[in-house]
Amino acid sequence: MDNLNKSFQSPPWGDSGSFLSVKDAGNIDDLIKLALHYKQNPFAHQALGKGKRMGLLFLNPSMRTRLSTQIAAQNLGMEVIVFNASQDGWSLEFEDGAVMNGTTAEHVKDAAPILGNYFDILGVRTFPSLKNRDEDYAEKIINQFVKYANIPVVSLESATVHPLQSLTDIITISEHLPLKDKTKPKVVLIWAPHVKPLPQCVANSFAEWMNEWNQAEFVIAHPEGYELDKRFIRDALITHDPVKALNDADFVYVKNWSSYADYGKIIPVENDWMLTTEKLSVTNDAKVMHCLPVRRNIELSDEILDSSNSIVTEQAGNRVWAAQSVLSNILNGLT
Amino acid sequence: MDNLNKSFQSPPWGDSGSFLSVKDAGNIDDLIKLALHYKQNPFAHQALGKGKRMGLLFLNPSMRTRLSTQIAAQNLGMEVIVFNASQDGWSLEFEDGAVMNGTTAEHVKDAAPILGNYFDILGVRTFPSLKNRDEDYAEKIINQFVKYANIPVVSLESATVHPLQSLTDIITISEHLPLKDKTKPKVVLIWAPHVKPLPQCVANSFAEWMNEWNQAEFVIAHPEGYELDKRFIRDALITHDPVKALNDADFVYVKNWSSYADYGKIIPVENDWMLTTEKLSVTNDAKVMHCLPVRRNIELSDEILDSSNSIVTEQAGNRVWAAQSVLSNILNGLT
Amino acid sequence: MDNLNKSFQSPPWGDSGSFLSVKDAGNIDDLIKLALHYKQNPFAHQALGKGKRMGLLFLNPSMRTRLSTQIAAQNLGMEVIVFNASQDGWSLEFEDGAVMNGTTAEHVKDAAPILGNYFDILGVRTFPSLKNRDEDYAEKIINQFVKYANIPVVSLESATVHPLQSLTDIITISEHLPLKDKTKPKVVLIWAPHVKPLPQCVANSFAEWMNEWNQAEFVIAHPEGYELDKRFIRDALITHDPVKALNDADFVYVKNWSSYADYGKIIPVENDWMLTTEKLSVTNDAKVMHCLPVRRNIELSDEILDSSNSIVTEQAGNRVWAAQSVLSNILNGLT
Repeated sequence: MDNLNKSFQSPPWGDSGSFLSVKDAGNIDDLIKLALHYKQNPFAHQALGKGKRMGLLFLNPSMRTRLSTQIAAQNLGMEVIVFNASQDGWSLEFEDGAVMNGTTAEHVKDAAPILGNYFDILGVRTFPSLKNRDEDYAEKIINQFVKYANIPVVSLESATVHPLQSLTDIITISEHLPLKDKTKPKVVLIWAPHVKPLPQCVANSFAEWMNEWNQAEFVIAHPEGYELDKRFIRDALITHDPVKALNDADFVYVKNWSSYADYGKIIPVENDWMLTTEKLSVTNDAKVMHCLPVRRNIELSDEILDSSNSIVTEQAGNRVWAAQSVLSNILNGLT
Repeated sequence: MDNLNKSFQSPPWGDSGSFLSVKDAGNIDDLIKLALHYKQNPFAHQALGKGKRMGLLFLNPSMRTRLSTQIAAQNLGMEVIVFNASQDGWSLEFEDGAVMNGTTAEHVKDAAPILGNYFDILGVRTFPSLKNRDEDYAEKIINQFVKYANIPVVSLESATVHPLQSLTDIITISEHLPLKDKTKPKVVLIWAPHVKPLPQCVANSFAEWMNEWNQAEFVIAHPEGYELDKRFIRDALITHDPVKALNDADFVYVKNWSSYADYGKIIPVENDWMLTTEKLSVTNDAKVMHCLPVRRNIELSDEILDSSNSIVTEQAGNRVWAAQSVLSNILNGLT
Repeated sequence: MDNLNKSFQSPPWGDSGSFLSVKDAGNIDDLIKLALHYKQNPFAHQALGKGKRMGLLFLNPSMRTRLSTQIAAQNLGMEVIVFNASQDGWSLEFEDGAVMNGTTAEHVKDAAPILGNYFDILGVRTFPSLKNRDEDYAEKIINQFVKYANIPVVSLESATVHPLQSLTDIITISEHLPLKDKTKPKVVLIWAPHVKPLPQCVANSFAEWMNEWNQAEFVIAHPEGYELDKRFIRDALITHDPVKALNDADFVYVKNWSSYADYGKIIPVENDWMLTTEKLSVTNDAKVMHCLPVRRNIELSDEILDSSNSIVTEQAGNRVWAAQSVLSNILNGLT
């Protein structure tokens, strides 16, 4: 273990050692620094995870998150086992006191302790119902894994946040800093249309991390009816005027989300919020970000995605280093 | 290879090197001893499986069995590849002489030899039809893998038995021995309700292992109509009276199974056979076991599962060491 | 790296380092020689792939191809991650300029670069539509992975060819050479019935490789209406008379394919083209090959498959060494 890594092994890293949101992140700049260290030296700490095993449980399917986390864990020397709940015919019960005479085959109270027994770290991907806002925003599901697994749990996206994505996003922004002509970049999170109702996770989480990081002028633009939960956006600047938001922006993060107020619904929008090259012209030649997968010519035009303004591939690539940085800290906290 | 391990490399370990039931187990106490050695030292024999590869073929999905066997094999240094027949779009034919103009895409006679070619050890999970008792009890499916694969086959549960589970169960019991006030523990296998017709595997297999181990007073309690095959239970004490069975019990193994006589059916039962704290009161503060997944408040009450009487998590955790003990013996038998 | 392996690191190995057809194979005899070297010494070059990662993306499910490629890559020291597009709920768009308001969730233009970012080598299994011949024969899908992934792509079967299978087939033939009484073996590719319309891949590819290898008397036999694309068969001898084709044959490769002319259709056939022991009697005690899975008693009789004439298991086993030989060359081409 070299000094670089040791320096990150500092409290607070969550009491449970889990990583569920920015609250468990400790010093964000330290996480970024370690991530960029791994980007240069993927196998720098391959002894750290030797003999340790990580389980990746997907209650909802995933491609980028699965691959990047698996690679990050392997880079640290861990063995990784992936299992998809639905594919493995494994439907979990989360209600306390349930009389299990229906379709759920196992209670999380029984399943999670065993995962905690088999693994050293557990990654869990859940998803909001988009029906019951109170339950979703209480993070009922992932919190039960934390409660019963008795090992560090890493969120691979939960009902309301996606912290590994947000760390990735800030790493990606920071790689393009400092700007020549500004001390603080202007970063715009802008809503875009989609064909399906999507969670608010990525937007909530990005807002929360941007606020905590606090090294940018942060603006959120969305149509009326798409207001996000105040607990995440805090005092970020909100506008319904995309032109005003985009003006002189250095980074534009495009993302759809469904309504929080009319929970989980797609509310009709008058203007076309798809980002195009024309709209981008008022920015400071902004870098365009998206967490992917992206619906081309719905959320973002081909023209932008195929241009040099787009940094979405670089951003997705950084998923590995964000995960590796977080897992490294968790491993340092074990034993 | 140290002496501990060498001592288990003794015949008989099945002629084929396969592990399909207690008949292939050799000395059970030796298996337990090795399992508990691995529980303390998971990586004690990591060189043993180096360069060896295990395939885990699931004709029916699995969570605990898949994870524990995969971990056990990795602990021994093996590489493991898991494949789920149904998910990988691979439906096998088991009828000899079949004209394959239907939905089955490949005959086990062609598939198994190739698995034998690719792997050093093959784990197979099958399941009973619960329709054709003769075919199920002839273990038609797993026996064809043994016949055609030409490498050691490990049962990950077959149509009638679940030997790795049973070894786990006895390991778990033995960890709580000796009792203060008895020379032999009283072990009760007790039937419980379920919403679906389940195989007799776990019950058959536990009975068979308990009889072979022969270090407990063994009682089986079930409602009328749920009699098990005599070949497995032999001269175990059978009762239809749960109170009598539970009286002074030290270990209570709760499990549902469907009828053997009226094969694969759920036969209506008058009394409530769900195990509760009240019913448990006549035991000797018994440890409660279940192979999981368990239907809470159908098979077992929340109250019991959440109490210190329940050792189901510990039991599931032992799945790893049972598998590792068996795989270790098989590896020692490979040249 | 020993000399044996170094000698294969010679151009041309495709400009992209990809392996999509015989055109990327370089010297076939060198590939065979290396494959047979690995068959004797699976771990000979385990340092070659250390720290390298291979992704295996299946747009269509696979058993043999998945297992053999995974094993081959692991034998070379690589880490392998398998992902099944459909099971992981990941449906890709391949149309340029598509307005993605339908069921496809991600464009290959966005997905492939990220796979290229995560992996060092990408294996891709696609499948023909069997509806649009022009698109299938333009290899629209796999070519987009090559175009956008920016790393070597290995075909695990594409719309029109199956090069790892064909290399396997030639390795298998060459293991039985030289014949006692002939300088060149007679190799017959013979059409067989099937219950479903199958791609022309295996037949196209085998023809292409046999032509390029050019060390056999090569004959293709099929009913009228099952003519293959001239680009693959070139000047191979074609006959509609199975007896004439089989006469004095040394190797008989049995395979179904759907019509190329009436694209993707099953055209009714008058005579029974299932290969039987009786039909085989006119051969020179020929070895019978099939890429598997095989429909018993539809394509080939039980009698043949269970006889010593069948070398299908040996052939399937060679899938590992063919893949390992190809991957070894690609790894040597990486810096």
